[in-house]
Amino acid sequence: MPEGDDVTNPIGPVDATRVPRYGGDTTFARLPRLTDVPDADVVVWGVPFDSGVSYRPGARFGPNHVRQSSRLLRPYNPALDVEPFGRVQVADGGDLGVNPFDLDEAIATVESGARELSGTRRRLLTVGGDHTIALPLLRVQHERHGPVAVLHFDAHLDTWDTYFGAPHTHGTPFRRAAEEGLIDFAHSAHVGIRGPLYARLDLDESEKLGFAAVHCRDFARQPLDEIIERVRTRLGDRPVYVSLDIDVLDPAFAPGTGTPEAGGLSSMQLLEVLRGLDGLNVVGADVVEVSPAYDHAEITGIAAAHVVYELLSVLPVGGR
Amino acid sequence: MPEGDDVTNPIGPVDATRVPRYGGDTTFARLPRLTDVPDADVVVWGVPFDSGVSYRPGARFGPNHVRQSSRLLRPYNPALDVEPFGRVQVADGGDLGVNPFDLDEAIATVESGARELSGTRRRLLTVGGDHTIALPLLRVQHERHGPVAVLHFDAHLDTWDTYFGAPHTHGTPFRRAAEEGLIDFAHSAHVGIRGPLYARLDLDESEKLGFAAVHCRDFARQPLDEIIERVRTRLGDRPVYVSLDIDVLDPAFAPGTGTPEAGGLSSMQLLEVLRGLDGLNVVGADVVEVSPAYDHAEITGIAAAHVVYELLSVLPVGGR
Amino acid sequence: MPEGDDVTNPIGPVDATRVPRYGGDTTFARLPRLTDVPDADVVVWGVPFDSGVSYRPGARFGPNHVRQSSRLLRPYNPALDVEPFGRVQVADGGDLGVNPFDLDEAIATVESGARELSGTRRRLLTVGGDHTIALPLLRVQHERHGPVAVLHFDAHLDTWDTYFGAPHTHGTPFRRAAEEGLIDFAHSAHVGIRGPLYARLDLDESEKLGFAAVHCRDFARQPLDEIIERVRTRLGDRPVYVSLDIDVLDPAFAPGTGTPEAGGLSSMQLLEVLRGLDGLNVVGADVVEVSPAYDHAEITGIAAAHVVYELLSVLPVGGR
Amino acid sequence: MPEGDDVTNPIGPVDATRVPRYGGDTTFARLPRLTDVPDADVVVWGVPFDSGVSYRPGARFGPNHVRQSSRLLRPYNPALDVEPFGRVQVADGGDLGVNPFDLDEAIATVESGARELSGTRRRLLTVGGDHTIALPLLRVQHERHGPVAVLHFDAHLDTWDTYFGAPHTHGTPFRRAAEEGLIDFAHSAHVGIRGPLYARLDLDESEKLGFAAVHCRDFARQPLDEIIERVRTRLGDRPVYVSLDIDVLDPAFAPGTGTPEAGGLSSMQLLEVLRGLDGLNVVGADVVEVSPAYDHAEITGIAAAHVVYELLSVLPVGGR
Amino acid sequence: MPEGDDVTNPIGPVDATRVPRYGGDTTFARLPRLTDVPDADVVVWGVPFDSGVSYRPGARFGPNHVRQSSRLLRPYNPALDVEPFGRVQVADGGDLGVNPFDLDEAIATVESGARELSGTRRRLLTVGGDHTIALPLLRVQHERHGPVAVLHFDAHLDTWDTYFGAPHTHGTPFRRAAEEGLIDFAHSAHVGIRGPLYARLDLDESEKLGFAAVHCRDFARQPLDEIIERVRTRLGDRPVYVSLDIDVLDPAFAPGTGTPEAGGLSSMQLLEVLRGLDGLNVVGADVVEVSPAYDHAEITGIAAAHVVYELLSVLPVGGR
Amino acid sequence: MPEGDDVTNPIGPVDATRVPRYGGDTTFARLPRLTDVPDADVVVWGVPFDSGVSYRPGARFGPNHVRQSSRLLRPYNPALDVEPFGRVQVADGGDLGVNPFDLDEAIATVESGARELSGTRRRLLTVGGDHTIALPLLRVQHERHGPVAVLHFDAHLDTWDTYFGAPHTHGTPFRRAAEEGLIDFAHSAHVGIRGPLYARLDLDESEKLGFAAVHCRDFARQPLDEIIERVRTRLGDRPVYVSLDIDVLDPAFAPGTGTPEAGGLSSMQLLEVLRGLDGLNVVGADVVEVSPAYDHAEITGIAAAHVVYELLSVLPVGGR
Repeated sequence: MPEGDDVTNPIGPVDATRVPRYGGDTTFARLPRLTDVPDADVVVWGVPFDSGVSYRPGARFGPNHVRQSSRLLRPYNPALDVEPFGRVQVADGGDLGVNPFDLDEAIATVESGARELSGTRRRLLTVGGDHTIALPLLRVQHERHGPVAVLHFDAHLDTWDTYFGAPHTHGTPFRRAAEEGLIDFAHSAHVGIRGPLYARLDLDESEKLGFAAVHCRDFARQPLDEIIERVRTRLGDRPVYVSLDIDVLDPAFAPGTGTPEAGGLSSMQLLEVLRGLDGLNVVGADVVEVSPAYDHAEITGIAAAHVVYELLSVLPVGGR
Repeated sequence: MPEGDDVTNPIGPVDATRVPRYGGDTTFARLPRLTDVPDADVVVWGVPFDSGVSYRPGARFGPNHVRQSSRLLRPYNPALDVEPFGRVQVADGGDLGVNPFDLDEAIATVESGARELSGTRRRLLTVGGDHTIALPLLRVQHERHGPVAVLHFDAHLDTWDTYFGAPHTHGTPFRRAAEEGLIDFAHSAHVGIRGPLYARLDLDESEKLGFAAVHCRDFARQPLDEIIERVRTRLGDRPVYVSLDIDVLDPAFAPGTGTPEAGGLSSMQLLEVLRGLDGLNVVGADVVEVSPAYDHAEITGIAAAHVVYELLSVLPVGGR
Repeated sequence: MPEGDDVTNPIGPVDATRVPRYGGDTTFARLPRLTDVPDADVVVWGVPFDSGVSYRPGARFGPNHVRQSSRLLRPYNPALDVEPFGRVQVADGGDLGVNPFDLDEAIATVESGARELSGTRRRLLTVGGDHTIALPLLRVQHERHGPVAVLHFDAHLDTWDTYFGAPHTHGTPFRRAAEEGLIDFAHSAHVGIRGPLYARLDLDESEKLGFAAVHCRDFARQPLDEIIERVRTRLGDRPVYVSLDIDVLDPAFAPGTGTPEAGGLSSMQLLEVLRGLDGLNVVGADVVEVSPAYDHAEITGIAAAHVVYELLSVLPVGGR
Repeated sequence: MPEGDDVTNPIGPVDATRVPRYGGDTTFARLPRLTDVPDADVVVWGVPFDSGVSYRPGARFGPNHVRQSSRLLRPYNPALDVEPFGRVQVADGGDLGVNPFDLDEAIATVESGARELSGTRRRLLTVGGDHTIALPLLRVQHERHGPVAVLHFDAHLDTWDTYFGAPHTHGTPFRRAAEEGLIDFAHSAHVGIRGPLYARLDLDESEKLGFAAVHCRDFARQPLDEIIERVRTRLGDRPVYVSLDIDVLDPAFAPGTGTPEAGGLSSMQLLEVLRGLDGLNVVGADVVEVSPAYDHAEITGIAAAHVVYELLSVLPVGGR
Repeated sequence: MPEGDDVTNPIGPVDATRVPRYGGDTTFARLPRLTDVPDADVVVWGVPFDSGVSYRPGARFGPNHVRQSSRLLRPYNPALDVEPFGRVQVADGGDLGVNPFDLDEAIATVESGARELSGTRRRLLTVGGDHTIALPLLRVQHERHGPVAVLHFDAHLDTWDTYFGAPHTHGTPFRRAAEEGLIDFAHSAHVGIRGPLYARLDLDESEKLGFAAVHCRDFARQPLDEIIERVRTRLGDRPVYVSLDIDVLDPAFAPGTGTPEAGGLSSMQLLEVLRGLDGLNVVGADVVEVSPAYDHAEITGIAAAHVVYELLSVLPVGGR
Repeated sequence: MPEGDDVTNPIGPVDATRVPRYGGDTTFARLPRLTDVPDADVVVWGVPFDSGVSYRPGARFGPNHVRQSSRLLRPYNPALDVEPFGRVQVADGGDLGVNPFDLDEAIATVESGARELSGTRRRLLTVGGDHTIALPLLRVQHERHGPVAVLHFDAHLDTWDTYFGAPHTHGTPFRRAAEEGLIDFAHSAHVGIRGPLYARLDLDESEKLGFAAVHCRDFARQPLDEIIERVRTRLGDRPVYVSLDIDVLDPAFAPGTGTPEAGGLSSMQLLEVLRGLDGLNVVGADVVEVSPAYDHAEITGIAAAHVVYELLSVLPVGGR
């Protein structure tokens, strides 16, 4: 299991003047594989799994679609004046093999896989897959950090109890995580919630758990900087885990997803909020629910790739 | 013809924990058919008809596409804190059989069909089909309410006179309605008007009729709440008929339509304006010009389904 | 549970001169629902389930896609000079609610659902869904007929043992059915087998079970009539159950499926073989693995709808 | 109106070594417009009209789609050893303006337009549009040739009487033509007929009119040369009018059409039959029912462009 | 080479009441070809060329795609109260034949082609093609106006030096133009810049050249009118050349492009900025990087067509 | 540069029971990379290059698309009773970095890249990229084998001289190869030739070079076994290089290509001919012109992946 010193002189993406961006291996941002570097501080990896999906499946193809859509990502992020691949070693950790036919085993596999991959110091940026995987990922975060502040971007609350009797689906991870005490709710928030619910109880239960909510409608009324400030204040100096369902974007910006709801955020709004996390103690993240069969011209894949890129850009150097 | 008391204990959508949302009958929001309930106060029905279209046809497939795209709609609308299917009986009235080869007969069929379906108390939410059908629908509204305030969401004015000599097309319904005195123009408005016109005369004639206009450009400059207030003030306490052409949305949000114009509203803007109608006297509505052959991943269908959902949410209980 | 006399004067599809084919309810071939007729001899129903899929998911949307793609089916089949909806009452039995998160429960639900729906005399034509469901469907056939001759159209053998430890997936139904003695192998055959396998053992095991095979390559070399004769001879006068995976067609003819293999049958070839079953004792059938997210312009859906239509056309009147 | 001597030194397509094929004007095969040549013997023109369509509309966009898809057509046809643009002047006649809202007026416009365009000697190759237009086109053929032998490629008979009371739709042209005595039925044939009909009566009525039929199934059983010989024998030395509905192809080869039926011809089979007309007295043709909104990667458009190309290749030089 | 007096009584688009918009020649906005008018003051023409593309190619099909997507453009622009086709003669100049295999020859061909087409007084609005062509187009502008103020809409800076050793690609035109002294940098600006860069040096070099930049992020924070004012102030009374890469729009609004970056402008924002140029001395423009193979339902094509329309609307009458 | 003994115990594809096929690295058939095995006898590699394309570009994305579409390929080929990955070490050689802006440099890079990769004993199976690359690939074959028998599957002859003055494009490789004496024409053949040509001269010149031709039409008339026998006889015992343009398939089977022609082969026909090469001395191959932007549901990619698989299956063990 990987342990190591801080990485210096990280190996970056393949040189585009040697192999054009449309060619070459399909890793995230054309970064080296984890097996091709001495060690890595940050690992982008995939969990191709969608058996927890309640409507459109297909997120099992998500990780490789996001990789394919990330070929245009270049090393310097002018919005934050940072080179996310140049400060620490970032590597592509490949995909985890997860049983598609047994949800409970899958949860366990993701948990042990994340634990092994992260070791004592690596930070993981996980590309799903469906939102079911947030639970085992949070368990591993909890082991290192105790209860974490969760910043949850999503059209949906994902705090339902069970569906068809199944405790582990893409609609329930935060309910389970709450029961296991993994979340520091006083510093957690949903962002982008919108669309019809089963009942007012859904909102009540989320609030009872302690989640704050920045509703999608707020973006139509409040200045973006105010919303960012609300988010930053909420998160404070806690270890922050970002769990981002791509359906927080409007279907125009993310058609390739499993439970699309009209009236969502634009890509510009989402990316700005993510940039607003700069300086906070982000300890890990997942980006889930990209379903390529419903994507067109990689609209969704490109948006997700940029989301990962901004998350990498706000990961604090030296953080855990 | 249906007459009846107020509906109590309405039958709601199929239970998604019994039949998953991707399965089961294709009714709007998985609501019961009209033939499966004792009576209904509000009927969502389809008019599959597109023979009045001047550019891309295909809206004849619109009603079933919107139904298919409405499978994710859940019972509780948090934006308005209301359960639109729980206050009154809402049912799916199925599709009207309309002659695609004879525009005049089609107009007559829609008129008699709407009259019969609405009876003396039902409120109709019609899914088109092309905009031609607004004329006969307004006739039936007029019979019950006299001249109605029309809130017309559209990229286009739809107040042209004739096209290829045809008085009844999707570009002419409001001209015909004006001639027949169906509209209370002092309380009517276009929302979302944009794009090239044939001549300045088009605007002049619409103004001469008395239509106010919230241009699409206004959304780029005015706070949303101000626009909503302008709309509410204009409509006042009149009986309001909402006629919504999905092309009021930008092609990014509604590619599946017949006469797309760049520079339109976002889904979020449109849904917010619709929510802003809460408390007004909305008496009926149509949602038209969804053309599925040009849709992708149900982007347009989902937007239209949400539009219908918000309209159902602002229909006043006990209203006629 | 339905029991009854032979149906006379069956109710047919909606009259297309009253409601055009692009409108009206989305039932198979616009036939009446089972709940709208006194009884039915033949029921077309859907099992929206795809949790047994090993590659591209999405067949959960298959039943309604096939229904939507069946709107052009008319009552008279000139190829067989028969009116499949006019001889017996055919009805659309709707969709079964199946747990997407628990494969074993799903198998049980399909079994009990099929048993209840078929009763003592109804014949079922099931639209999937993935091929996992063939097992419980065969169990119900076995209850009525004893071991049945299975005519299995597929690119794949579907006789694998387990996958990720799961005994019930879309690659294993016939292995399980063999273990349970449901199949009369001496009269059973695969048709359309092609493409790479895991090992020669796959073929050997299928042969050991007793399956004959008409390989896809045979269609490139043998006259169609000879192939049909081979099939008829093999089936003999046994009760025949047809289990048809749409991937027996080439991806050009059926892009919308889960495990496509190049080099498959054309629609014309497939439909001709199905017509060749006329006069045999077909007792039931399934058509599975239509995955709409990968379909285009309903190419796959229309092919599947025609497959169901030809199967209905060869079902013997008065058969069980 | 054009009258003239035989054209010599015809002007051919734009030189692809000067303007690459992806650029330049969108005329059929990049041929000159009729207005840019002194005269033309053969005119390819468009009738953008689809108001006679009973299912999927959109063929109004057909002519320009076929033009766009014809950019790769080169001057020499090796299958027939002929240069179809080099023997006589072929020109693109542009599109006819037809009223989309009035079927009867449209029929009259097409008739007068075709009459004017053809004059006394020009031969027309018409790209639709829907099959409604075959009637007025046949009227003009009849004026010059008397009753013509019709070679009708189609999945459907198109000999229905009325639909929704309309005598002129895409399902009725040959019934009307029969009533007007335009067709020499003893030398006419359907090719490619398949799929469900309303009733056996449909076939009977077509036969009673005198149409022979090469059913689509025949292609699965008879050698292609035999089928071609059957067709040639039937047509004899009569003036032949070819009316070709692109849905004669299987949906795999022509997804972009209005009433697709599974089990159709391949492009190779269709093109070979057309080449088999070489030496017959073909006097004109139409290619109809290309509906671009349902096409993908111009599969249908390219097939239609090649169909037109082969038809131009078999038009006898000096013929009328 | 064309010289002439001011055009009076310009010939406008084809009358849509004579030939419906879905039919007729495929010229921009259905305007006359340059060869069909005595002279023209403004020419919209195409440069189908994409050999300078570094990622997704296909812009070679851009000019005809934008033409096809421009069929709905009508003569009167209400946003600016102007009839862009009625003040001066606007014509479609067709496409330039450019060598796809030799970048240097292509540059020379575009330069000489633009010089010849513009003559001493015509203003050109060029539809690409990829951004490589901005260099020769600027050379021709420079000949007439000296160094021009460049208003550059783009996600990217396009000021790189070489790529694979090539000095002329779609990423380098403004670097080359700077070296040749074609640009008045004190009055030039990028608008819409966003997304990852190779290094901070990219920004530095652009700034060193003198380009101002309105970053895409600014649109999320500043009122639109302020941004427009910034742009107008920067441009001043200089001759302005607008070079617009359609990827300045978000991929939701312009999926059909070669190097898409998430987080871009909306169509409404872009069109408003363009309208804000009214009254300035716009002397020419290009709209590039529309790649139709990645477009859907003409979303991108329609946006580009509207961009051209607004540019035509702000071209000063009598300007050079 | 790799040299080595015969490979024993080759490393095969990733175990699909450990990492499901939709996940894991995107190598051809999930085989190991060349850098992850001691050595390899056969290398599948990509040349992402399409600057020689005359119509639709995009084949630069071909190699990774074919890899992605090859995920379902399993180890045992029942058609030939062979395990193509089990006899010799097959590995994925990754992509070559080729200059997209300089055709001559690109040719040189492909030549040196192929030479280095093949060394003295490796056999290469190259995935393009456009057909331009056949020339340098043949040069390397010639170095080892002298003039090779070329089996050229294509709709086009690819024996043109120059295009826009460029000697190296996707239409000219075999003309150049002839001039350089790389081909043993007495044993070479085109297969699948069809569609319009520039002039009869094209055919004549190809024949003068010595190419035999199996025209596409032959497949409609001759039994497949006869065609295979013609091919085998022609090739004899010569070293055979297979150069396969995916447009040999009909657009229905391969829409994702650059110069599609209607009337092509089916996948079944093509795969059977390839299997018919078993026992011949195949020394190398390329599969080119897969253009993913025009593909749908990987129809083309899957066909190409199966083509590569069959080619691997007929490569003689121990061959060079």
